[in-house]
Amino acid sequence: MTTVAPSTVIDALRALVAPDRVLDDEASLDRYSHDDAEWADYEPPLAVVLARATEEVSAVVAWAGANQVRVVPRGAGTGLSGGANSIASCVIISLELMTAVLEINVGERYARSQAGVINNDLRAAVAVEGLWYPPDPASQAISTIGGNAATNAGGICCVKYGVTRDYVLGLTVVLADGSIVHLGRHTAKGVTGYDLTALIVGSEGTLGIITEVTVKLLPLAGREERAIIGYFPSLHAAGVAVAAVADASIVPAALELIDRTCLRAVADWQGWDLPQDVDTLLMAKVDEVGESGRALAARVAELFADSGGVNVELADDQVEVDRLFLARRLAYPALERLGPVLTEDVCVPREAVPEMLSRIQAAAAEHDVVIANIAHAGDGNLHPLIVTAVGDDAARARAKLAFDRIVEDCSALGGTVTGEHGVGLLKLPGARAELGARVLQMHADVKHALDPAGTLNPGKGF
Amino acid sequence: MTTVAPSTVIDALRALVAPDRVLDDEASLDRYSHDDAEWADYEPPLAVVLARATEEVSAVVAWAGANQVRVVPRGAGTGLSGGANSIASCVIISLELMTAVLEINVGERYARSQAGVINNDLRAAVAVEGLWYPPDPASQAISTIGGNAATNAGGICCVKYGVTRDYVLGLTVVLADGSIVHLGRHTAKGVTGYDLTALIVGSEGTLGIITEVTVKLLPLAGREERAIIGYFPSLHAAGVAVAAVADASIVPAALELIDRTCLRAVADWQGWDLPQDVDTLLMAKVDEVGESGRALAARVAELFADSGGVNVELADDQVEVDRLFLARRLAYPALERLGPVLTEDVCVPREAVPEMLSRIQAAAAEHDVVIANIAHAGDGNLHPLIVTAVGDDAARARAKLAFDRIVEDCSALGGTVTGEHGVGLLKLPGARAELGARVLQMHADVKHALDPAGTLNPGKGF
Repeated sequence: MTTVAPSTVIDALRALVAPDRVLDDEASLDRYSHDDAEWADYEPPLAVVLARATEEVSAVVAWAGANQVRVVPRGAGTGLSGGANSIASCVIISLELMTAVLEINVGERYARSQAGVINNDLRAAVAVEGLWYPPDPASQAISTIGGNAATNAGGICCVKYGVTRDYVLGLTVVLADGSIVHLGRHTAKGVTGYDLTALIVGSEGTLGIITEVTVKLLPLAGREERAIIGYFPSLHAAGVAVAAVADASIVPAALELIDRTCLRAVADWQGWDLPQDVDTLLMAKVDEVGESGRALAARVAELFADSGGVNVELADDQVEVDRLFLARRLAYPALERLGPVLTEDVCVPREAVPEMLSRIQAAAAEHDVVIANIAHAGDGNLHPLIVTAVGDDAARARAKLAFDRIVEDCSALGGTVTGEHGVGLLKLPGARAELGARVLQMHADVKHALDPAGTLNPGKGF
Repeated sequence: MTTVAPSTVIDALRALVAPDRVLDDEASLDRYSHDDAEWADYEPPLAVVLARATEEVSAVVAWAGANQVRVVPRGAGTGLSGGANSIASCVIISLELMTAVLEINVGERYARSQAGVINNDLRAAVAVEGLWYPPDPASQAISTIGGNAATNAGGICCVKYGVTRDYVLGLTVVLADGSIVHLGRHTAKGVTGYDLTALIVGSEGTLGIITEVTVKLLPLAGREERAIIGYFPSLHAAGVAVAAVADASIVPAALELIDRTCLRAVADWQGWDLPQDVDTLLMAKVDEVGESGRALAARVAELFADSGGVNVELADDQVEVDRLFLARRLAYPALERLGPVLTEDVCVPREAVPEMLSRIQAAAAEHDVVIANIAHAGDGNLHPLIVTAVGDDAARARAKLAFDRIVEDCSALGGTVTGEHGVGLLKLPGARAELGARVLQMHADVKHALDPAGTLNPGKGF
């Protein structure tokens, strides 16, 4: 789309922001050209701008729009769908240097920060004030709050506490023409106008570039974490336990499932002795305080045991809670030791989790690939992890077929093709099939209304 | 805008839906021409269609769009901002006959219903299955779930449980061209595409007509309501108590304030003896179970007393809880006995509630009108109720000035001009001032993208 010579682009950008924050060396262009998604396409950009302020983002976008150069925004690049991947001749705007927490309002329980603040850093900053920011994507140590908002990131505690969207009160956004707008509010409630904040959250940089985020916070006090784990002889038995927890009217603060393949990978790596004949590990948290919390944790342990769970353990101090959840934390790195991991992200009705996991096993067998599973079982949100050996192109082709098959099965079970990772590039075909022609037209109409020249994050969205 | 003769419109509509559900008698045209907002403008429509099915809404909207007739959708007409008010030559589509609860999914904890289902009826239907739909606007006995979604209605428990938007998983919507689309999902999580569901929620019928709503539910069990009330000698003391509850990291399930004027109106009506020298009544609920709940309620009572509260009472059975909250339920009817009530709805930062209430008293004095206040104090959401005598046009003019003054004061304190009632007609000027030119342009762009001919709810939106 660009009609401007690369050197002209660099010169123009260096006139807009400090020259040393406009990168065009090959290593940088490569490094910033993709996120953490395996096998999503990308081409090197013309330049990478490391923005420090909303005004710089505005200046670059305005210049790009006027010169028919496309712009791909980017946080920490931890996405797993290719949503931050570059196309040829585009400019990457990285927000990773925008790391200021601008305001923590204790009375109103909100925090306002620049987009590049790491989730855990925001969490730590508000904890000092006795406040808690719940959304906890697995990437929380490395992903940014701006990226979390742009993808509407989920996490482990969202089974009880909701996802990023549920906490975003307001945004500062650079629009496609370079305008800076402040959307949303700082008050607890508000219905003034369309909810453009919610429209931008999860739009993956295709409608505007989020430069500041105002998030709602909860009190840090008033929670006591307890963990309960149990090993199950089959996926079916674990599914019975998940249903039993729901039927008991319990809303756990976490309900995670690790399947046999994933469990063995962790155990092999760590040298753990697993109980005999175990297939599936379930890990729950409850966070009610005092006697209620103790009773609830005991009830979950009982439901696990009644559903066929063995080696059921219960922990009520933070060190032990973390120990019981260790397998969850080690799952992804354990699999990455075996080769590149293509991470799936599908969400089905909770009760369809065992059936979906069976179908995933069938897809693995049919296409002769290794698929391990981590699942937010309480949400029906599954992460099949497709592992192939380095450089095995044939396996990679089979993995892609398994990936597509999983998306089809998810849709057949009434699910949605991305639960929390976003559409990016990898889920575009599945999302198109799921949404249907008229809803896609609405997407195109909204995109055209807010970015008529198609400047923002080309190739994503619809 | 219409170029079609009224009789032609009636004939066309009667060919699309059953003739007896197309009304054009004067009484019906008058009855359906406005909602419950005082003093918002309206003109009689050409016809009222009582739709029974999404397909009928679709047929009417498609015909209207093709014939340049405008359409105003309507639930129960309980709105307080004029959002359902008619303009001349338009067609009203009432959804009040669409009262089927279509599905209650216990395992997934959602319910799908037609738009015309009354909030309390939905609540009752899901309660039979052990489930709970939290959003509880004061109109819950008479307002529809479709109207609640179209206005993103709030309520008393949203200080802890959130507003309507937080519970809407999906919608069936008739678009401006008559297309029927299904937005959102039935799964617990999902990020496939733009959040058009959230965009439609709160858009007051200007982007599409909501005909079905899928809402997320919570377990009915696991809550025990306790109420705590206290009378305070001043607004300031009540404000100190509200802040003390927040500082103690307590998130109450309700935190309502009734000011002196409102309290006296209720007491006079009911013949209650109020404690000496009381100015403000605070009413809180907590709903944690067992010992935690008891301890929390006792702590709130203690904080009320420490902040100067007198006659502090605590109740832990439902009959007593309802008795303690009786003044809240009687507040609006008590004031309506005195004359027409213009209901304000502004939201300020929680800590600005006492200052905002002082400014409202100043506005009442300056413009010589009676203003009573109900406030969702825990949310900073105030409802100044401006009362004038029947037929007193001078008082009505002064009331309008006071209304505008309150909106200005709210903005000056960092608030938003509508917390939960919607922009409708009454808040259009305030909303325009709050949003600013570029964000208004975004609204216009989105509206034009989804309703290019301006068929839907003319005169509302931006």
